[in-house]
Amino acid sequence: MEKENTVIKQRLSNLRAAMEKEGIDYYMMPTSDFHNSEYSADFFKVREYFCGFDGSNGTLVVSQSEAGMWTDGRYFIQAENQMKGTGVTLYRMMEAGVPTISEYLKTNMKAGQTLGFDGRVIATSIGEDLEKKLSANGVTLKIDKDLADEVWTDRPSLPCHDMYVIPDELCGKSFSEKLSQVRSKMEEYGTTFHLLSKLDDIMWLTNLRGNDVECNPVALSYAIITMKDFTLFVQSKELTEEVKSYCEKSGITLKDYHELFSFIESVKATGDILFDKRNTNFLTFKALSAKAAEAGVSLRNEKDPTEILKACKNETELRNIREVYLRDSAKLTEFIYWVKSNVGKIPMTEYSAAMKLDSMRATLPGFIELSFPTISAYNANAAMAHYEATKDNCAEVKPEGMLLVDSGGTYMGGTTDVTRTIVVGPVSDEIKRNYTATVMGMLRLAGAQFLEGCTGKNVDILARKPLWDLGIDYKHGTGHGIGYILNVHEGPQNIRWRFTPGQNEAALMPGMIVSDEPGVYIQDGYGIRIENILEVVERESGEYGQFFGFAHLTYAPIDLETIDPDIMDESDKRALNAYHAEVYKRVSPLIKDEEVLKWLKEATRSI
Amino acid sequence: MEKENTVIKQRLSNLRAAMEKEGIDYYMMPTSDFHNSEYSADFFKVREYFCGFDGSNGTLVVSQSEAGMWTDGRYFIQAENQMKGTGVTLYRMMEAGVPTISEYLKTNMKAGQTLGFDGRVIATSIGEDLEKKLSANGVTLKIDKDLADEVWTDRPSLPCHDMYVIPDELCGKSFSEKLSQVRSKMEEYGTTFHLLSKLDDIMWLTNLRGNDVECNPVALSYAIITMKDFTLFVQSKELTEEVKSYCEKSGITLKDYHELFSFIESVKATGDILFDKRNTNFLTFKALSAKAAEAGVSLRNEKDPTEILKACKNETELRNIREVYLRDSAKLTEFIYWVKSNVGKIPMTEYSAAMKLDSMRATLPGFIELSFPTISAYNANAAMAHYEATKDNCAEVKPEGMLLVDSGGTYMGGTTDVTRTIVVGPVSDEIKRNYTATVMGMLRLAGAQFLEGCTGKNVDILARKPLWDLGIDYKHGTGHGIGYILNVHEGPQNIRWRFTPGQNEAALMPGMIVSDEPGVYIQDGYGIRIENILEVVERESGEYGQFFGFAHLTYAPIDLETIDPDIMDESDKRALNAYHAEVYKRVSPLIKDEEVLKWLKEATRSI
Repeated sequence: MEKENTVIKQRLSNLRAAMEKEGIDYYMMPTSDFHNSEYSADFFKVREYFCGFDGSNGTLVVSQSEAGMWTDGRYFIQAENQMKGTGVTLYRMMEAGVPTISEYLKTNMKAGQTLGFDGRVIATSIGEDLEKKLSANGVTLKIDKDLADEVWTDRPSLPCHDMYVIPDELCGKSFSEKLSQVRSKMEEYGTTFHLLSKLDDIMWLTNLRGNDVECNPVALSYAIITMKDFTLFVQSKELTEEVKSYCEKSGITLKDYHELFSFIESVKATGDILFDKRNTNFLTFKALSAKAAEAGVSLRNEKDPTEILKACKNETELRNIREVYLRDSAKLTEFIYWVKSNVGKIPMTEYSAAMKLDSMRATLPGFIELSFPTISAYNANAAMAHYEATKDNCAEVKPEGMLLVDSGGTYMGGTTDVTRTIVVGPVSDEIKRNYTATVMGMLRLAGAQFLEGCTGKNVDILARKPLWDLGIDYKHGTGHGIGYILNVHEGPQNIRWRFTPGQNEAALMPGMIVSDEPGVYIQDGYGIRIENILEVVERESGEYGQFFGFAHLTYAPIDLETIDPDIMDESDKRALNAYHAEVYKRVSPLIKDEEVLKWLKEATRSI
Repeated sequence: MEKENTVIKQRLSNLRAAMEKEGIDYYMMPTSDFHNSEYSADFFKVREYFCGFDGSNGTLVVSQSEAGMWTDGRYFIQAENQMKGTGVTLYRMMEAGVPTISEYLKTNMKAGQTLGFDGRVIATSIGEDLEKKLSANGVTLKIDKDLADEVWTDRPSLPCHDMYVIPDELCGKSFSEKLSQVRSKMEEYGTTFHLLSKLDDIMWLTNLRGNDVECNPVALSYAIITMKDFTLFVQSKELTEEVKSYCEKSGITLKDYHELFSFIESVKATGDILFDKRNTNFLTFKALSAKAAEAGVSLRNEKDPTEILKACKNETELRNIREVYLRDSAKLTEFIYWVKSNVGKIPMTEYSAAMKLDSMRATLPGFIELSFPTISAYNANAAMAHYEATKDNCAEVKPEGMLLVDSGGTYMGGTTDVTRTIVVGPVSDEIKRNYTATVMGMLRLAGAQFLEGCTGKNVDILARKPLWDLGIDYKHGTGHGIGYILNVHEGPQNIRWRFTPGQNEAALMPGMIVSDEPGVYIQDGYGIRIENILEVVERESGEYGQFFGFAHLTYAPIDLETIDPDIMDESDKRALNAYHAEVYKRVSPLIKDEEVLKWLKEATRSI
C-alpha cells in the first residue's frame, strides 16, 4: 500500500479548516505571481506547498471532499510521483475525457456555493471566464482572500530587494521623455488614467530596476499614470536613498506596494481608464471596474502603450546592446574553446560546464545576473526542451557527440541570449545533415529582407524551410523579443508560424531585437539548436515601400565540424562564410589568448 | 468653357424626379450585381448610366443639389475625362481630405432625411455600417427600391441564359451527397435553415451551371436549404427540359428567382438560420433578420459550409483537372511557338495574338468559354496590372522585348489560368535579372513543403523573397484559389503576405488549387509575370505532424532566353531543370507538329 504523505495531508486539512471559516467551498491555487512573471518566487509556491508537486505549470483545486491538480503532458510522471500518498487526484490536461478546471467546477459546484482564490494570481481573462460560467450556476466568487497567508505558517516572505537607478545616459531617454510618449498615447485613446501592472514595462518607463524575480531585473510594482501624476507602488523597504532622491527629482510619487487597492478606491477618475487585460490580474481588474462604474467612466482594454515603445530600442540602447553582445559573444567563444580543448581531459559535466560559463560571464564589465538559468544539455538530454542539469543530477560530458548550451546575461548595457551546440566528439551523418539544415535556417532568416508590415508569421518559414524539406520540425517558436537590461523574453514581436487566438502578431519594426533559434530534437538521441540574436534594421525604401532586414548581434563561431557543405546552396555557404568572417573580425580584438585566437581563425574559416 | 453633357444631365434630372416622388433625399449606386460577382452584366451598370464613368470600381451618390462619384487611384484620370460636363463631382478615394461615402453622408444628411439604394447591390457589412452611422443622425434608409428600373428606359434586361447539368461522373459527387455534407455542417452549427447566395457555391452544390455572368459559368440564383427541402430560385426561362427533369429527379424544388423575398416572408423557420454575411446582400439580410425575429430564432453568421467543401477538390475532379491543365498547357505551348516564330514576320498586335490563343483554346475538347478575358500586354503595357487590349486600341508586337499573356479556359473537366511572359526579341540585363528572380520565386513556392495548418501568409514569402532581395515587390497577391468548371477566382484560400481585416486566412488543404504568380512591373518599362497553377498534395506524416506540398498542374515552358543562371542557386537550377523535364515528358505526347516538338525540346533543355 502507498505510504501516506502526512505532511501534505495535514496542510490540506488546515486549508480546509480555513476555507470553512471563510465560507469558501472550493479553493483554487494556480502558478503565478501577482504580475504573471516568467518565474515565481518561493512566496508564491502555494500549490507546491499544498500538494508537493513543484513543476512550472499546475493548478490545485481543493474542496472539503476532494483535491485535484491539473498539469500538462510534460509533468504527468513527475506530478504522479511527487503527489504519492497525498490523496490529491492528478488531472491530465488535454487527455481525452479529462475535464478542464472550469468544466470540473461547473459540474461539481452547487448553487449557493463559493469559489475562492487569490484574485492577484489569476489572469483577468481566466477570472472573467470562471465568473461567467459559474455565476450562471449560482456560484459566487471570493477573490480577495489568500488563504495561504494564514495556513502556511513558515511561508517565505514576499521578495524584497533593493531597487536601483539606470542612468539616463544608458537609457537614451529619460523617464520624463518616456512618460510624455505614454501620455500622448493615452490621449490618443481618449483616456486620462492608466494602470500599468507589467513589471518590465514599469521598469522600462521609470528607468528603475529591481531584483524581485529570478533572472528578471524587476521590482514588484504597479504604476498609475494620470495626465498630471505618476504614482509608483513598490515595497517601501526596496527604496534606497538613491532611488528615493531620483524619484523625488523625477516627479514620481511613491506609495507602498500594498497600498494599490486603497489608492484605486480613493483616487478620483475624471476620464476613461486605460488598462491592458493581458497584463492585469483579476483582483486589480475588479478594482478598476468598480472605480470606473463609480466614476461613470469607461474601462478601456488596450495594449499598454509602453509595450511597443519598450520593444523598439533607441539609438543609445542599440549602441550599448551591440557592444554588450560582442563582449558576450567573445566570452562564449572562449568558453567553446575551453569545452573543446578540455573535454575528455578534465572531469566535465553538464553542470560544471554551465558553472564555468556562468563564472566567465560574471567577469564581464557591468554584469548584473544571468538572463535565465543556463541550459547545458549533453547528447540525448538536449532533446528535452526544458532540460535543467543540477549539480547532483547531470550527465558527464565525454568526447563524443554534442553539448547544447543556451545561455545569456544581463549587463549594464543589455540583456543577451545565445545558443550554440558544440561538437565534442564524433557525430553521425544524420546529425551533420540536421545540424547543417539548422544553421541554414538560422542564416536564411537572418538574411531576409522584407517589407514594412511583415510579422513573425511571414518570415518564420525561412528558418524552418531547410528542416521542413527534410520532414523535421521544432515544436517551439523561432524567435522572441528581448529586453534591454530587462527580461530575456519580451513582446510584442514573435517569430512563429502560427499564433494562438489572442496572441499578438506584431509587425517587425526597426530597433526590435529578436532571437532566431531553429533546432532539431530527436528523442533519446540528440538535440541541436543554434540561436543568434538579431536587430531589425532599415533597408532600402522606394516605390515598393520600406524594406527592413536583420543585422546579427551575436558573433560566435558555428561549429564547422558538423557542417556538410554538399547539402548547402551556394547562397547558404556565402552567408555562413560572410558571417564567420565577421565573427573573426569583430571578436578577435576582444580575445587575448593566442591559442584561442589561433583556434578561432580556424573555426571561422571559409568552406 | 467645358461642354455640357446634356444626356447625363437629363438622366440625373429624371433620377431626381423619381427620388422626389419616392421621398428619397440621397440615392446611392455602387458597382455590383445582386451576388457580388466579379463581373457585372450591363443590366447592373446603373452608375455608368447616370454619370458616364465605366471603370470597374465606383459609387455614385445623388441628391437634389449634388452628385458625387467615388473611385480609387486607378481611375482618377479616366473618371475625370468620362464625367466632363456632367456636373458630377469626383471624390478621389484615399486622398487626404477626401471624405468617405459614409463620412460625406453623415456630414450632409439631416435628421428626417432618407437615403435610398437598391439593397440587393450592397454588401451587408456596408449596409449595416451606413445604417448604424446614419440612424444616429436621424436618417432613415429605403433599400427596396431600384430607381433605375423606372428612369432607365432602355435598360438592358437581366442576364438570362439556359442552365445546364454537369454529369455526376464529372463531378465526383452527386448533388445529394453534397447536400448531406452541407446539412451535417448545418447540424453542427445547430441550424435548420440556410440561405445560400453565392453563385458558384450554388452551382457547385447542385452540379448545375449557367451563363449569366461574364466568364463565370453560373446562373443568377439563390438556394434555401432546410433539413427536408432544397429550394432553388432561378429565372424560370433559364430552365431547359434537361435541367427541370434533373431537378425533379434530385428533389430540387424550383422557384422563380424573383420569388425569394416572398418565399422568405411566407416560409416557416423552425430553428436557427444560417447565413454568411460576406456573401449576402443587405436586402436579403434584412429579410432574414425579419424572419428570425418573427420566428423567435437566431440569425447565425457563419462561413457557408459549401465554401471549404467546394475548395477541396475530390479525386474525380482532380483527375479531370490534371488532364485539362495538360491539354491547356500543350495548347499554350503551341501558342508560344506561334508567337516566337511569327513575330516580325506577320502583322501581330496584342489583340490579334490574344484572338489567336483564344481560338486555339476553343478547339480543345469540352471548351465552354474563357475563364477571364485574355490579358495580352506588350512591353510597357504589361506594367499595368489591369491592362486590356482592344481591337482598336492595342500595341503592335515587334521582335523586341516581351509579350505577357495571362489566359485560361473553362472546360468540361476544369477551369484553367496561366501566365507566361514570352520573349520576342532582345531584352536588357535588368530584365534578365528580374525575370530570373520571378521564375525562382514561382518555383520556390511550388517546391515548398509545409506543416498542416499553414496558410498563404506563411508561404507567400517563398515566392517574393528573390524579388524582395532585389528591393522589388509586386502589388498583388501571390495566389488565388480556382474553381472546377467554375470561377477562376475562388476562396477561401489565398496566398498573400498580408490580409485585410475580415479577409479569410484559410489553411492550405489537400485538393485545393492555387495559383502561384509572382511578377515585376516597371512603369513605362515592362511587365513580367509567371503563373503556374498548383495542387495542394499530402506529403509525409509522422511525429512532427502532417506535411503538405504542391504539385504543378501547369506544364508550359518558361522562356530560357531571359534566364540568367548565374544569379540562381543550385537548388533553383535543379528545380527549373526538373520542371522543364516534366514539361517535355508530359506535353510532348500531346503535340503533333514536328517543328513545335523540336523547338520544345530545345526550350526545355537543362541549364
